[in-house]
Amino acid sequence: MTGLFSLGLAAAGVTSFAVLGQASRQSSTLPLSGTPKIHHDTSAANIKAAYEEFEQIIGNDHISTERTDLVTHSGSDYQSYAWSEENDILSNVILYPETTEQVSQIVKVCFRRRLPVTPYSGGTSIEGQYIPQFQGVSIDFTRMNQIKEVNPVDLDCTVQPGIGWVDLNEELASHGLFFPPDPGPGAMIGGMVGTGCSGTNAAAYGTMKDWVLSLTVVLADGTIIQTRQRARKSSAGYDLTRVFVGSEGTLGLVTEATLKLAVKPPHEVVAVCTFPTLRAAASAVREVASSGIQVAAVEILDEVQMRNINLAALTRLKWKEEPTLFFKFAGSDDFIVKHIAKKVGEITRRNGSSTYTFASNESERNELWSARKAALWSMLAQRQKPTDKVWTTDVAVPLSRLPDIIEFAKADIEESGLMGSIVGHVGDGNFHTLLLFPEEKRPIAEAVVHRMVDMAIEMKGTATGEHGIGLVKRDYLEKELGKETVDAMRAVSIILFLPMTVI
Amino acid sequence: MTGLFSLGLAAAGVTSFAVLGQASRQSSTLPLSGTPKIHHDTSAANIKAAYEEFEQIIGNDHISTERTDLVTHSGSDYQSYAWSEENDILSNVILYPETTEQVSQIVKVCFRRRLPVTPYSGGTSIEGQYIPQFQGVSIDFTRMNQIKEVNPVDLDCTVQPGIGWVDLNEELASHGLFFPPDPGPGAMIGGMVGTGCSGTNAAAYGTMKDWVLSLTVVLADGTIIQTRQRARKSSAGYDLTRVFVGSEGTLGLVTEATLKLAVKPPHEVVAVCTFPTLRAAASAVREVASSGIQVAAVEILDEVQMRNINLAALTRLKWKEEPTLFFKFAGSDDFIVKHIAKKVGEITRRNGSSTYTFASNESERNELWSARKAALWSMLAQRQKPTDKVWTTDVAVPLSRLPDIIEFAKADIEESGLMGSIVGHVGDGNFHTLLLFPEEKRPIAEAVVHRMVDMAIEMKGTATGEHGIGLVKRDYLEKELGKETVDAMRAVSIILFLPMTVI
Repeated sequence: MTGLFSLGLAAAGVTSFAVLGQASRQSSTLPLSGTPKIHHDTSAANIKAAYEEFEQIIGNDHISTERTDLVTHSGSDYQSYAWSEENDILSNVILYPETTEQVSQIVKVCFRRRLPVTPYSGGTSIEGQYIPQFQGVSIDFTRMNQIKEVNPVDLDCTVQPGIGWVDLNEELASHGLFFPPDPGPGAMIGGMVGTGCSGTNAAAYGTMKDWVLSLTVVLADGTIIQTRQRARKSSAGYDLTRVFVGSEGTLGLVTEATLKLAVKPPHEVVAVCTFPTLRAAASAVREVASSGIQVAAVEILDEVQMRNINLAALTRLKWKEEPTLFFKFAGSDDFIVKHIAKKVGEITRRNGSSTYTFASNESERNELWSARKAALWSMLAQRQKPTDKVWTTDVAVPLSRLPDIIEFAKADIEESGLMGSIVGHVGDGNFHTLLLFPEEKRPIAEAVVHRMVDMAIEMKGTATGEHGIGLVKRDYLEKELGKETVDAMRAVSIILFLPMTVI
Repeated sequence: MTGLFSLGLAAAGVTSFAVLGQASRQSSTLPLSGTPKIHHDTSAANIKAAYEEFEQIIGNDHISTERTDLVTHSGSDYQSYAWSEENDILSNVILYPETTEQVSQIVKVCFRRRLPVTPYSGGTSIEGQYIPQFQGVSIDFTRMNQIKEVNPVDLDCTVQPGIGWVDLNEELASHGLFFPPDPGPGAMIGGMVGTGCSGTNAAAYGTMKDWVLSLTVVLADGTIIQTRQRARKSSAGYDLTRVFVGSEGTLGLVTEATLKLAVKPPHEVVAVCTFPTLRAAASAVREVASSGIQVAAVEILDEVQMRNINLAALTRLKWKEEPTLFFKFAGSDDFIVKHIAKKVGEITRRNGSSTYTFASNESERNELWSARKAALWSMLAQRQKPTDKVWTTDVAVPLSRLPDIIEFAKADIEESGLMGSIVGHVGDGNFHTLLLFPEEKRPIAEAVVHRMVDMAIEMKGTATGEHGIGLVKRDYLEKELGKETVDAMRAVSIILFLPMTVI
């Protein structure tokens, strides 16, 4: 991927504001060529002076410059980005604030001193979101992990960005409620807002974009804004909430989020069925959808992935190594949920499935669903050497094109000689490819991803369904959306919110 | 409402771009005090010269300066805004383009000549959205009314802004599909995008914000952008689609929209039940929601509204004049839908309802639902003089506060001496007040609306749930969201997209 970092939205991110005086824009958009150069100051003297100011704001025990901390805040083994500890793209300092006011004070210092700022929460993003490309300051939100309020009748809650969605859902269960977006288990609300993530619940409930009511955000100059109040619906002014969801930390730092909640359906059934081909499985999903049946989730795993699950033996069951659909059905009434599950069973059989395993009690349900959950770990378990990497990526296409692009990707992976599997949110046209490769074969993996993304865009799809663009996919934006659209995004990024971070 | 027009987002809207050179902003936001003055040029000479250019672009028969046209594009009898034909806030010229390219050419002329631009489609907005406050050019989109494609398997369609949602749904019915947002029947897609509207389907399906996949937009300088491709889900770059949905024409002109579609549930049941008090009805709705039962719609009408429906005799049935809930249930299976309807009947009885009328065949269903549909017209029918006005307004609050604010509003209306009724989207905390008043009592009506909005904001709600802010409610934004948040919106409006219109 030549020029991987040359076209990013805010690759030329600016913390110097004289720029507004210099630029005499004559248009509604901002091309890269008209974008002023960055003038960051990460000199040792500036960092030292900033450190002293940070100490005044949050105290010594909320600051770290330990190498181990710098390393863990700069990458991970399952980044698609070609990260390694030796690359040494490290922040100069890690800060652990506890309040919105502290974050605002910190950002004011960075604004004045022209220090790049990169936010960090769960560290589970995979497209290079929290890699501190221009060094400077990483702000770690893990000490802002409080649930500030739960309003069961209003179906909302207010939380700090450092709480994980798994922990949040444990707390909400006692109210009979849950927060639907379900990305990787370690993800925290701050990062989930940043990437506009989703997960297996998206087909029925929508993505993170649909579940954030309001955000408290610290802008680049330290200004604190709250994007909305708590009514579940509003048409008052611009939808600033959605401007920030999916902006990957480039427009401001989220310090509090008010989230919509759903009533946890009291009854649930999981069903698993195998098919001779991926196309037959996709056709079954299509028939379910067009009959108006609402499933809670539907996921597809290919035969490679099912074999990996058997090999890794992460689940007690032995699985058929065939393209497999995992369905979840949920509702207010046991009787209805089972009735729907049976109707779907009839549809899958009509589409060539010979098996339909069905579980309604909790432990059996969890056992069935565990295979879906084990997908990434079972691939990681196939690594031959500790330096082997797993590249997880995703694309999304219009629903009708999903079988085409999955077949294209599978044939391409086979030709590449790499081990690669497919795990798909088949209900919304989004799927993941997991590629296992030794570091020396990175260019081969990179080429597979490149061709898959190109094909998705040609099919009127997107380079990233739920992982954001990070440092890895931002070069595809122009192909996907056109130069003018990216120029409009760049104008939002550079002129308006004065981006702080490096993405 | 003193100072009604002093705080609007883009009240000081600017089409002069030298401003960017003048302003040396040192912050991420833009306060009103720092906002440059407008320099429009609506002189006769400039209009005449522009007219000649418009003729070149769209031809003489796509331009009007007839007074009747200017009047119909400047207000209506059911505007909350104090509009009357005598006010004479009229555009100088109305243009009827047919293509995106023509709109772009027109906007380039307006940009160069500093002419204010106001978009117009169905003309059903009620908060003064299309009133051409600074005169200039109204662009009427009703000749851009084509359905460009329907993709049944992808569950999406692409349309021009001048098609009405009712017409669109008639076309979609043949595919077994529908587009959920259902505001007033005359509304067109362009205006629905503008206000971020919703309707009775919002409780189950969400609002306009949730159903627009992608927009083609002409920006202030004539640049054409498309905000996204067609994948149902994407996390690629900023969510520009949502920046435009609800922006009321202030950021650009929508010339094409790709919309998500839903499968039309093949089975539907409508149920109507009356309650001794509004609070008992609200309590029933709450119990339905917390039990995890998904209704397709639930609406509340108060006893005043039910009496009006009887008086207007717009429906064949005679209704009990009590607080009344209208439920809609829908699904893939007749048996399940009826089962759910019965369960809800048990809940309403437990909450004090003595009646539960239930219809599953189409004509009976339509008959029951017709009372809900007749709400506005039955109020209009009560006018004593042709100059009497109906002020329709709405607020939304967190779900738990809905009974409180409805009781507050009803008591306040009673004290005012005006006839006023309540019609509520009770499933999402949003309700409408319909006030009937003779023009000389406008200040009384205005005061009732003012107190209701104030109370909604105090309850952490919003000044407008689904009608936008227009010219009527923009002064509430600062109270609802805080000065910094409005200043951030103003920065989007004024610096980035160089607003064209007057709102």
